[in-house]
Amino acid sequence: MTNVLTGRKPVLEALRAGRPLDKVMVLRGTHGSTIDEIRRLAEHRGITILDSEKQHFREFSPDALTQGVIAFAPEKKATGLDEILSGIRESGETGFLLILDQIEDPQNLGALIRTAECAGVHGAIIPKHHAAPINPTVVKASAGATEHLPIAEVTNLVSAIEELKRSGFWVVGLAGDGDKTYAQVDYTVPTAFVVGNEGRGIRRLVKEHCDHLVRIPLFGKVESLNASVAGALGMFEVVRQRERR
Amino acid sequence: MTNVLTGRKPVLEALRAGRPLDKVMVLRGTHGSTIDEIRRLAEHRGITILDSEKQHFREFSPDALTQGVIAFAPEKKATGLDEILSGIRESGETGFLLILDQIEDPQNLGALIRTAECAGVHGAIIPKHHAAPINPTVVKASAGATEHLPIAEVTNLVSAIEELKRSGFWVVGLAGDGDKTYAQVDYTVPTAFVVGNEGRGIRRLVKEHCDHLVRIPLFGKVESLNASVAGALGMFEVVRQRERR
Repeated sequence: MTNVLTGRKPVLEALRAGRPLDKVMVLRGTHGSTIDEIRRLAEHRGITILDSEKQHFREFSPDALTQGVIAFAPEKKATGLDEILSGIRESGETGFLLILDQIEDPQNLGALIRTAECAGVHGAIIPKHHAAPINPTVVKASAGATEHLPIAEVTNLVSAIEELKRSGFWVVGLAGDGDKTYAQVDYTVPTAFVVGNEGRGIRRLVKEHCDHLVRIPLFGKVESLNASVAGALGMFEVVRQRERR
Repeated sequence: MTNVLTGRKPVLEALRAGRPLDKVMVLRGTHGSTIDEIRRLAEHRGITILDSEKQHFREFSPDALTQGVIAFAPEKKATGLDEILSGIRESGETGFLLILDQIEDPQNLGALIRTAECAGVHGAIIPKHHAAPINPTVVKASAGATEHLPIAEVTNLVSAIEELKRSGFWVVGLAGDGDKTYAQVDYTVPTAFVVGNEGRGIRRLVKEHCDHLVRIPLFGKVESLNASVAGALGMFEVVRQRERR
């Protein structure tokens, strides 16, 4: 995972989450309530604040919009699937996971992580290969949610799904050719939602290991929803059903 | 509205929607199934196809990713609110509208239009001022949905809302401080959903004219959902309730 955080919201969220930070760099002359809050929290935690010139910013972030703030964090320890599962057991809550099968667009990946964190998902599972990595663009698109949501990177998604099933999870894949609509499945049981690649959807082998394949009913001429919107609809249907109990 | 369409999906959708096009420009040497389909449809409708060099493309689209195809359309006639309402009356369907109050990010605007078209919304209403215009970025982000969804630009959103109420619509605003959750309202009646600005939400005056203000329950540490995700959840709750009847 990244150790350079850029942008006001990601840095603020990292500070709020108590994530270990080595230092925070603020562009000299930058002001605003979020910057003030970042300074206050960093000072409170004894994190070095550097007021730096533009050229230092370019060094660390040649492309990204930093909004005048960069934070340097020690390499974030990867979360394991076991860790996520034991966290759920300890909480006593009904498990709720998000599996992302080869999401390629960092904006979509960030948006899905943001929505998952808002929906109370316990953790996300992403494959180590053939997917967008959690880079600064993803961190930024997630509005800082990557700081709060446990994310497990796994080498084999099918094995992870089998492990989840053994742990009592129902695995539900979003697929245009699903035989039920997404609101026709019971999500009051432990649920892991699978969202597939933007163009190709969920891989065949992963699909075959899902307990349900559900589709979102569409009524227009445009053939598909954005992956991050489809995922959001699935996740918040889980919320809706559980809230009603 | 724009008269230059860039990108394979928007051009394909314009052709499929039967939108009048003056000509289609294809980058020499570009191939693929979508390009083939674009050529086939354009030929079928007698629209001139120009095989052009890169420099011609730069002239019309200095920034945008054209994916090797640009279409030129006569200025699209703006849709009026009256036209949308009479269309709904003729269809005999229960009215379903989306009102966008000062959405500023073209990506969000395009995403909301895409989702609305997929959800079977009859039309979108946007203010003429203080909002992202329907430019090529919006057209592209909408995956071509701007070609299918009637969009009325109005000078006064509050007057438009009052007109909708007189026509039997219930106006539901998405707001973080709403007194109900979005799933606690009956959407089987004619419904107009209001989505507000990404940062500031719905303007106070517009809010005061809504029949209901609803919030999306959030369970994480990140304070808010992306506007396009929040709007999608609202729109598909309407779909869910109406599908169940």
